[in-house]
Amino acid sequence: MTPKVLVIGAGAIGGFYGSLLAKAKAEVAVVCRSDYAQVKKHGINISSETLGNWHFRPSRVLQHASEYEGVADFVLLCTKVIPELDRVTLIRPAVKPQTSIVFIQNGVGIENELLDAFPNNDIISGLAFIGCNRIGPGEIKHLAYGRLSLGTISSHPGTKTAALCELFNKSGIECSASDDIIRDRWRKCVWNAAFNPLSVLSGGLLTLDILHSQEPLVRNIMQEISIIAAAIGHTLPTDSIDMSISSTYGMPSYKTSMLLDFENGHPMETEAILGNALRAANGAGIASPHIETVYALMKLRDIKSGTALANSKHE
Amino acid sequence: MTPKVLVIGAGAIGGFYGSLLAKAKAEVAVVCRSDYAQVKKHGINISSETLGNWHFRPSRVLQHASEYEGVADFVLLCTKVIPELDRVTLIRPAVKPQTSIVFIQNGVGIENELLDAFPNNDIISGLAFIGCNRIGPGEIKHLAYGRLSLGTISSHPGTKTAALCELFNKSGIECSASDDIIRDRWRKCVWNAAFNPLSVLSGGLLTLDILHSQEPLVRNIMQEISIIAAAIGHTLPTDSIDMSISSTYGMPSYKTSMLLDFENGHPMETEAILGNALRAANGAGIASPHIETVYALMKLRDIKSGTALANSKHE
Repeated sequence: MTPKVLVIGAGAIGGFYGSLLAKAKAEVAVVCRSDYAQVKKHGINISSETLGNWHFRPSRVLQHASEYEGVADFVLLCTKVIPELDRVTLIRPAVKPQTSIVFIQNGVGIENELLDAFPNNDIISGLAFIGCNRIGPGEIKHLAYGRLSLGTISSHPGTKTAALCELFNKSGIECSASDDIIRDRWRKCVWNAAFNPLSVLSGGLLTLDILHSQEPLVRNIMQEISIIAAAIGHTLPTDSIDMSISSTYGMPSYKTSMLLDFENGHPMETEAILGNALRAANGAGIASPHIETVYALMKLRDIKSGTALANSKHE
Repeated sequence: MTPKVLVIGAGAIGGFYGSLLAKAKAEVAVVCRSDYAQVKKHGINISSETLGNWHFRPSRVLQHASEYEGVADFVLLCTKVIPELDRVTLIRPAVKPQTSIVFIQNGVGIENELLDAFPNNDIISGLAFIGCNRIGPGEIKHLAYGRLSLGTISSHPGTKTAALCELFNKSGIECSASDDIIRDRWRKCVWNAAFNPLSVLSGGLLTLDILHSQEPLVRNIMQEISIIAAAIGHTLPTDSIDMSISSTYGMPSYKTSMLLDFENGHPMETEAILGNALRAANGAGIASPHIETVYALMKLRDIKSGTALANSKHE
């Protein structure tokens, strides 16, 4: 039976992974906002360094989840996680009892609002390790990597994590199930909490400029994330920080997703990454002064910046 | 006998206080750099909200202290404190045994290089509480306040602090001797270490925007400065932080001197304020994570910014 998928947020991430599921013969509809007219008319073009170029023509192009007429096996939530967007409201009209909710999004502590709102659904938390940008309306450029990690976070007996992994693997992208996706989220946050805000607060430095000049600050932030994760029961591998540092040294210098958002006047995932980390720290009674400072500075930055819906990502 | 004064760094601070000493009948020569041609030809115009407008014609206008031919009773050092400027080299040619060295400059821990270089001279540390800008070559606008606090830091028996205070008071500006000028420097640093970098790192916010949004961060930085000062033997008054906060709430919102420097592409006093505070903290074995973070971010900012000699101040 053809699996039915509704992608909500067809920017770089949603467009890319949605198009892969379509390649694997799923029936993939999309909800998009800023690019609606273009995608409805022309679909989405993906050019990938590793997978070639292809065209993705969604089965339906919608402006709102309520317009979806079928029963989705998977709702794939791929927007940014920002206070301006209510994730529950966004997906609710398309969530039926048999629908698995999959969110491929950045940030920590972003599970509970979905678990609370949809207590009887299969909920799958997803992390994308990918370099991928929306370069224009309906135009996505896949630069590097692409691996997905998925983990069931609901206690729903009929989780479809394995089926979804299979579908992605069939499409040509590596996807695996995680035994502790919350730990993996904190593991990813180690990098994000350091490089994303520093790239913005430095006035636009690339990863290697930051690292060459202020590696101790990068490490202090990473260390605080690591301590918070352990305190809430998701101890990270002991080499997490060293690996984050050395892998960044090993990559070409690049702009973080938060810097791209900032430069484009889009809202930044400050709350999903730093705010939620700090709230977890406060809950556990842990001081995180480096993150606290960086978070407060990002809030000051927000006062100076306009915000808009995002449609470009580099995760 | 007419006191002889050589002002080194005739920007807003040096031009303003030098002109006051000339008003009090001292013989005041100036060394200036960027405004040399203009000041040599036309002198300096001061327009003051509280003291009226006046013209200051220095007895000599020089490009370098070595050109000074007399024996100065006072060398008044009024440049910014930045690594690009070697304060000792700058003043040495004009320092004779009977010369008192007076520095009216921002920052903490900036005494030792002068004490070491001139062990037999009278050295007077000065703090200016003033709103004063260079608005063009040879044009100074005095906006508010103006009080000076002076304190002898050398063990020289014949200190001329009292005589200098008298001269300033005669000119119409309040000047008093401090019994612990180093403590007063740290007291001023409480404000500077918080508002100056936050105004830059926020992307250009004014004082009240910062305070309304992130007062806890402002207080955390102030608290760390206060702890460092106490650890090195200069305990601040217990109400220092509350007073700094409430007096800022009581003033109109304004741009800090560091933000003005940043916006004009001038070098910032990051080392004199934050760097030296952190070095004192390290020496005393004290953790100052909020300041550490802000300092590291300012260093990253520096990578993105060009630097040049400063000629505008708001202290």
